[in-house]
Amino acid sequence: MKISINANRCEPSPMRKFHPFAVKANEAGKKIYHLNIGQPDLETPDVYYQAVRQFNQATLAYEASPGMPLLIEAIRSYYARLGVELDPDDILITTGGSEALLLTCLSILDPYTEVIIPEPYYPNYTTFVHAAGGVIRALHTGPEEGYHYANKKRIEKLITKNTRAIMITNPGNPTGVVLDESEMRMIADIAKKNDLFLICDEVYREFCYDDAYGVPTMGRFKDIDDNLVIIDSVSKRFSACGARVGCVITKNKELQQALLKFCQSRLAVATIDQLGAAALYQVDQDFYRRSKEEYRRRRDVVVDRLRKIPGVVVEEPMGAFYVMASLPVDDSDKFQRWLLEEFEDAGETVMFAPGAPFYETPGSGISEVRIAYVLKQEDLERAMDLLAKGIARYRAEQMNEE
Amino acid sequence: MKISINANRCEPSPMRKFHPFAVKANEAGKKIYHLNIGQPDLETPDVYYQAVRQFNQATLAYEASPGMPLLIEAIRSYYARLGVELDPDDILITTGGSEALLLTCLSILDPYTEVIIPEPYYPNYTTFVHAAGGVIRALHTGPEEGYHYANKKRIEKLITKNTRAIMITNPGNPTGVVLDESEMRMIADIAKKNDLFLICDEVYREFCYDDAYGVPTMGRFKDIDDNLVIIDSVSKRFSACGARVGCVITKNKELQQALLKFCQSRLAVATIDQLGAAALYQVDQDFYRRSKEEYRRRRDVVVDRLRKIPGVVVEEPMGAFYVMASLPVDDSDKFQRWLLEEFEDAGETVMFAPGAPFYETPGSGISEVRIAYVLKQEDLERAMDLLAKGIARYRAEQMNEE
Repeated sequence: MKISINANRCEPSPMRKFHPFAVKANEAGKKIYHLNIGQPDLETPDVYYQAVRQFNQATLAYEASPGMPLLIEAIRSYYARLGVELDPDDILITTGGSEALLLTCLSILDPYTEVIIPEPYYPNYTTFVHAAGGVIRALHTGPEEGYHYANKKRIEKLITKNTRAIMITNPGNPTGVVLDESEMRMIADIAKKNDLFLICDEVYREFCYDDAYGVPTMGRFKDIDDNLVIIDSVSKRFSACGARVGCVITKNKELQQALLKFCQSRLAVATIDQLGAAALYQVDQDFYRRSKEEYRRRRDVVVDRLRKIPGVVVEEPMGAFYVMASLPVDDSDKFQRWLLEEFEDAGETVMFAPGAPFYETPGSGISEVRIAYVLKQEDLERAMDLLAKGIARYRAEQMNEE
Repeated sequence: MKISINANRCEPSPMRKFHPFAVKANEAGKKIYHLNIGQPDLETPDVYYQAVRQFNQATLAYEASPGMPLLIEAIRSYYARLGVELDPDDILITTGGSEALLLTCLSILDPYTEVIIPEPYYPNYTTFVHAAGGVIRALHTGPEEGYHYANKKRIEKLITKNTRAIMITNPGNPTGVVLDESEMRMIADIAKKNDLFLICDEVYREFCYDDAYGVPTMGRFKDIDDNLVIIDSVSKRFSACGARVGCVITKNKELQQALLKFCQSRLAVATIDQLGAAALYQVDQDFYRRSKEEYRRRRDVVVDRLRKIPGVVVEEPMGAFYVMASLPVDDSDKFQRWLLEEFEDAGETVMFAPGAPFYETPGSGISEVRIAYVLKQEDLERAMDLLAKGIARYRAEQMNEE
């Protein structure tokens, strides 16, 4: 029996790699502040639970394969407020943004075809692209340039006759980079000119902290309708990760048909979660503002504290709820393990996601970390305090060893 | 922009192909009896809803990637009662049996590798195998032999150096064929001897109408632990299709690791559905007996009525809730469309799934249909009455045309 080549090309989740060490640390009585996973602690709007509890069909039946019409309508209304007009067929409901990404890759990638992705990027993209046999061509950026990837020349240099798509997360995970209007237009133009799909993962759309940018979505560029694939989800927007409800949006009819075949093969997305998700879209507009303000405060705390740690290189992220930073340590992976096994301060320690797995280019990101600012302010402050103390003690120990 | 070769190799769902005609028939005021989709009408046990309604976490968070420990334990207990001892790591919770199948195919198939599947088979298998670039080698059976596929010579003849797996549904969809102990053993031996994965889709396990067969599961053969992959689901067992909760079970450590990477990439299965599914496994043992008896009665009605229609070839199915039959019509696809567009009896008509898409071999199944006996007895009787009348009138019209 053989495991497939594409499965072997995938890696275990770097965010979950330290789970066994965390379990041991917990067992040893240590409290861990988790900044390693993008699991927000904000409350899920109660309308979700209300909708779920009101479900009263005797038989929990399959929903329609493309998604529950009620939810599709809710998403259409949400997009209409952003100035994006969608037909019901343009939206396919998926089991989270994750399934939207996997089905998109399966629909457009042949073995050895290429996807351009700015690095550092969300590591699960690797699995989705590799599942379809595709290859990632990394558009390299680093902490010293604030991870800004919107460089026309650098992008165009990566395009080959095998390139099928450009894939971006905007606002960015892990970097928090947000494209401005002219940068979005530039990337849209490259996709259009080169006949490439442009996959925009916009699940963090509502968390854009520079109000001048508004609510970024590529969906506003009508001339790239045929190229554009938007990945969306209720997970982060409404703090409803466990609902596993997302969608893939495209006006490309051929792609719609390909995606629909995959949607039909897995029959449907969970019924009551779709009902709950439809209810989420009925929150008042102030909900978005309040969530954003909360994350903006958290970002300010984290960036402020990071800047006070000597040797840290960090730029203020403009969106999402992550910050990527370079730490003054030899190896953030080794440092994370040390934090779990060797370090504690008043019985507490901290977890983040080491940087290297966010890069395709070997040797990159070794001193970097991704910090998810998904805890409430006092916990974040304590976590950053632990990080600062950890760095100081780790460096002292290293020097003693030398 | 190009659609992937593998997406182009997939077909739209044949069960859903007639949806637009059904919508038109509905709009014209016709009532349709749906025997085309395996959506049971039995009530979902209320424990599901109780568990869902009791969920009271403020934040709907991601569950663990391999699945909720509570649900994994519930499934372990269920299997222990069947005499199958499982470790928690042997079970990965998936979004329905569908995701279990897709992730299994992605984990073990390379482009151009082959899977042996007895035909007629569940058409969505095609999409799962093709998504991974695999090729289906059909083990042909037909109505005249009651679709019995457990033929050692015929199976062995299909094995090549590119064969990776044998994939069966037991009890069978669409045929209702159930393997007896010696047939199961024979297929297990072939898999073992030839170093093949044996993928057993056992989602209809509890619906086996010959009590001498008990509750069939390949899991009892301990010597094929390394080969065996069991696909399971709460959908049919508990009439909870809309929960989208299934699992993939294997003791093969390499496969576990490959599957886990895909599970991590999509983060988790929906939280409250897993909670509901765990509760479902707490139904009393009598629940299984009652469900089975209900389907057995329905099977008896359908088979009895089919046998009374002149020219129908049908063998009594031994399991699942489908019967495959050959009708005395030129083309069941054409006949289905006629039933929706031209036929009605007291304002009513009937839908089934035409047979050809259940076959890989071109030209097979053209006069066959799959009938899902998922309606209550009186509705089934009326549906079979409509089928009989439809056949008679269709044949008469055809003769007049000649």
